[in-house]
Amino acid sequence: MTYEFDGHIAVTCRDKGTWSADLTPGWQVGGGVNGGYLLAVIGNALRQTFPDKPDPIAVSAYYLSATAPGPATISVDVRRDGGSVATAAADLRQGEDARITALATYGDLARLGDDVRTTAEEPVLPPPDECVANTMAPPEVRAIAPLMDRFDMRFHPDHIGWTIGRPSGQGVLSAWFRLVDGREPDPVSLLMVVDALPPVTFDLGMMGWAPTLELTAHVRARPAPGWLKVRHATRNMAGGMFEEDCEVWDSAGRLVAQSRQLARQPRPVG
Amino acid sequence: MTYEFDGHIAVTCRDKGTWSADLTPGWQVGGGVNGGYLLAVIGNALRQTFPDKPDPIAVSAYYLSATAPGPATISVDVRRDGGSVATAAADLRQGEDARITALATYGDLARLGDDVRTTAEEPVLPPPDECVANTMAPPEVRAIAPLMDRFDMRFHPDHIGWTIGRPSGQGVLSAWFRLVDGREPDPVSLLMVVDALPPVTFDLGMMGWAPTLELTAHVRARPAPGWLKVRHATRNMAGGMFEEDCEVWDSAGRLVAQSRQLARQPRPVG
Repeated sequence: MTYEFDGHIAVTCRDKGTWSADLTPGWQVGGGVNGGYLLAVIGNALRQTFPDKPDPIAVSAYYLSATAPGPATISVDVRRDGGSVATAAADLRQGEDARITALATYGDLARLGDDVRTTAEEPVLPPPDECVANTMAPPEVRAIAPLMDRFDMRFHPDHIGWTIGRPSGQGVLSAWFRLVDGREPDPVSLLMVVDALPPVTFDLGMMGWAPTLELTAHVRARPAPGWLKVRHATRNMAGGMFEEDCEVWDSAGRLVAQSRQLARQPRPVG
Repeated sequence: MTYEFDGHIAVTCRDKGTWSADLTPGWQVGGGVNGGYLLAVIGNALRQTFPDKPDPIAVSAYYLSATAPGPATISVDVRRDGGSVATAAADLRQGEDARITALATYGDLARLGDDVRTTAEEPVLPPPDECVANTMAPPEVRAIAPLMDRFDMRFHPDHIGWTIGRPSGQGVLSAWFRLVDGREPDPVSLLMVVDALPPVTFDLGMMGWAPTLELTAHVRARPAPGWLKVRHATRNMAGGMFEEDCEVWDSAGRLVAQSRQLARQPRPVG
């Protein structure tokens, strides 16, 4: 059986270092295709580039122009492959248009050992059934954000006031997360998870799409099956830009991914 | 008058998109040349590539192999230049050896506006004269870290216990920072500042060099003249790697740069 998500991120090798993808309309949000989904597509091409180093460890993506659903090409240029990690550049294009340029280091997370001394604190969330499900979003929101149909998300009630015009003003969002198709998380899907929640600026009362300039994700462990906890926070909204930090915790209570993106302040909706 | 730092990061255009640099031994630390200094050299080549977009906004560097003092070449490939920002790939090589591959987005920080809503809290440090100066480091430490002679650093006494074998165990370092040559900070020098302090792992009792895999810096404003405050923290030491978050605050109390790097756990000294 193939999960929907694996079909959506599928890539086909066209030539050495060149991969084809067919980006589905199911990941659209606002004026483009979700950046996390695109990162997972690129991550999938890289995974197949390095059979003995299957896991993304660090991935940095610079978003050059808005991506549309349809065919795309990913070209991979290996910069170094030796020892326990390999580094490559990857570019996603549609026709002549450069969409994303990225760098990534891959390795084998299973070989890293179990010495864990995390002092970060796992987010506290009420049980999923006591959180606010994304399926409660009004139809007009779901119409402009088809990607929400891919997710089972349960938002912490303390940071969902923006849905009724009463944002907390703290710049925090947190939610339980899983894919609706039942596919369990893995290091490549985590590249999508770090950009799956709405912009953290919703919690500051700034509704609207926040275009990402740059996003770097670190995958620190293979996630255990089950619900993920995802937390977004921003602490530096200035000069029309903000940073969004994301943490992803797995069902075993481990901090499995950290990311930071720099994004433009949302444009007003309308 | 030319400041020492500007001489050290100087680049000469050899061909369109190709720059030469002469990396000084004065920035060595442990087995290599300081990664922040190298980032500033690359950042200087990029600044001259985009005369109307002089400021680094986001820079991501992947460190491929240890750099040695001496000649280096920086090749710049512009990926997009339109609107208010430009993005380029940059590679630093020595002979045939790839040392660093990087991506960067440049713009004009002076054009971004003064709307600042930072909720991050400025680090609290005793006055510089009540902090611990880097000049107090023993001669054997300064011998393996000549880069310390470039800096006037005053460390927070609460996080300097590692110098006497009593690390705080919190994974935090903070210090006042300025260049000894009197050069005031600017966006390009901030690329060096985010990697200038010792590894935050010193505060966890892990002495030794911590090789950087990846470092991304966001420069959020042009810094005011005077002392900078620099704070490092780590919250996820696991699997032989750790993240190091850095904040740089200027003398006007503004959070001017944020960075995160992924590094390998320090090798034991000796």
